[in-house]
This record gives sequence, C-alpha cells and structure tokens, in this order.
Amino acid sequence: MTSSSEKFDLSGESALKAIFRNHASGIAIITSRTAAGEPIGFTASSVTSLGSNPPLVSVNIAQGSSSYPHLQIGTKLALHTLDAQTLHLAKRLAGPKEKRFDGTEVSGPFGLPIFEQCPSILIAEVIKRFEVESNAVLVLAVADGKVNRIPDQPLVYFQRAWHTVGDKLSDNF
Amino acid sequence: MTSSSEKFDLSGESALKAIFRNHASGIAIITSRTAAGEPIGFTASSVTSLGSNPPLVSVNIAQGSSSYPHLQIGTKLALHTLDAQTLHLAKRLAGPKEKRFDGTEVSGPFGLPIFEQCPSILIAEVIKRFEVESNAVLVLAVADGKVNRIPDQPLVYFQRAWHTVGDKLSDNF
Repeated sequence: MTSSSEKFDLSGESALKAIFRNHASGIAIITSRTAAGEPIGFTASSVTSLGSNPPLVSVNIAQGSSSYPHLQIGTKLALHTLDAQTLHLAKRLAGPKEKRFDGTEVSGPFGLPIFEQCPSILIAEVIKRFEVESNAVLVLAVADGKVNRIPDQPLVYFQRAWHTVGDKLSDNF
Repeated sequence: MTSSSEKFDLSGESALKAIFRNHASGIAIITSRTAAGEPIGFTASSVTSLGSNPPLVSVNIAQGSSSYPHLQIGTKLALHTLDAQTLHLAKRLAGPKEKRFDGTEVSGPFGLPIFEQCPSILIAEVIKRFEVESNAVLVLAVADGKVNRIPDQPLVYFQRAWHTVGDKLSDNF
C-alpha cells in the first residue's frame, strides 16, 4: 500500500463544512406542540433511520433552538417528508418561528399539527436525548404513519441549496 | 383548525420503512483499522453533521455489524463522500467484507485506509457510542480533511436505489 500523496489541508470546523458541502442530505419537517398547546416545528436535514426492529429514528438538533426545550422524553411529534411541491414548507419551517404556522395545518393524532400536503408522515415519540456539547441527538420511537404519494421530485439539500433527486444510477444496495 | 381526514394506516416497522423509502439520504464510506491493523470499512447512509463548534458528526450503525466492535472510543476513522464516479466503492463497501479492500486504497493519517478517488475525505475520532436497542449512534470529533473535487453527480440513496442529485430548485436555506 502506498502512502497518501495529497495533504489533508483543512482542519476542524473548516474541514467539516467543506466536506458536508459535498454530502447531500434528505430534508424533513418536524412538528409538535408545547405543553401550552402552541404548534412548534422546524426543518431538519438530519433525520436518519436507527434500526427497524424496534423502529427508531434519530434527529440531530441544536440545544439552543427554540424547539429543543419542548422536545422532552415522551413528547409526541410528526415527521413529514418533503418534495418539490412542498419546498415552500421546508423554507417556511426554517424561517422565523412566528411565521411557521399559517392555519393550513390540520389536527392529527395526539392533536399534532399535520401538513397533509406532504408525501408521507410519521408519528413518533421522543425516547432518548443524548446531549453532546451544544447539540443533541434525539431518538424517536415510531408509532404510525401514512404515505400520501410517492414523490417524483423528493427534496435534498446539497451545496447550500435545495435540489431534487436526479437520475437513477443503479438499483442494487 | 380542522381534523386530519386521512387515516394513519401504517404502524411500527411498516410505517418506518414506507416513510424512509420517500426520504433521500446522502451516502458515504467509512474506513478504519482493527487493533491488528486490518482495514475495515462500510457504506453508510446515516452520516450527519452534529454541530460545527466543536465540529462533530453522527453515524448510526447496527451493533451486529462486523465493523462495530472495532469502532471504540478513541478509534480514528476516515469518512469519504461519494459521487457517480465512485459508486463502485459504495457498492463494494456494502458487499461481502472480505472483498471490500482490493489494495487500491492508500495509507493516510494514522495509517487509515484512504480511497483517494473520492470527492472529499474527513479524518475523525469516535468520542461517544450511544447504544439504543440493537443499534448505536457514534459521535465523531472532526480532526482534518481535504476536498479533491466538487462532485457534479453526488450520490444519494432513494427508493432503494442509487441516484445522483438533480435540479437545483432554490438557493435559500
């Protein structure tokens, strides 16, 4: 085996940011309610499966975010997948928190705010919060869900911009 | 607010699988070495940023995977981003473990096996292992990295198939 000829010339935060600019991520929105019943929600690029038996999902979130204090162990939430048709929701739920809900949401299981126009929706419960530095990994236990449509233009985030998924290269995982 | 008119007709594992089929994810490969010096590696669809100050990354992995016992606190590893040109590596590192390394890898920082043809590479260290049921969330502290090229066909996984990123819809996160 030969040695690597090229330098690793980036370090720390610069390395992280440069490499993640080259790494696409799926986009979802998460909604819930405060103890007082107010709707809360945010756009997440960190929604990841954490095993299917039992069905678990992980989501990374900053402890300083306005939603974090409301996402306690036992909190129910709704996770919505997104596509080109619902890009406006991804943008709205990433914007100022007082403008995230405009009354078009409906009341779903546990009274959760639901955006029915999304391709699919999962209902889940926070079962773990692993805090690391100023961030946290939330682990969610899946309750139930529904699929409204198979998106032909699912949303991904890449190079600091919203994209759709493009050509299929190969079937085989 | 009206009530949700449509039923949540999927539950548990079925709900998780149906919804994640609609959620695209970025793809990376992770390499390291066993204590005996043997190269190990795997393809991951769960690589996610966990904050930039300090720079952290999370990766979800099954505790039953052949790599897991070798990824202890303090283990160094290399995370490679992927694109259409390196799809063969994504497939190879998701296949039989005895065929994952063919000698084309080079020796990088800490003697890590490096695939220099990848778009970008991050060197990191395992600092936390959060075990949940039969899976685990690994938290990695970023050391350094390099960018070989900006991929024009980055790799994403969607609907059980490999895709590239498609059209840009909008710039604004």
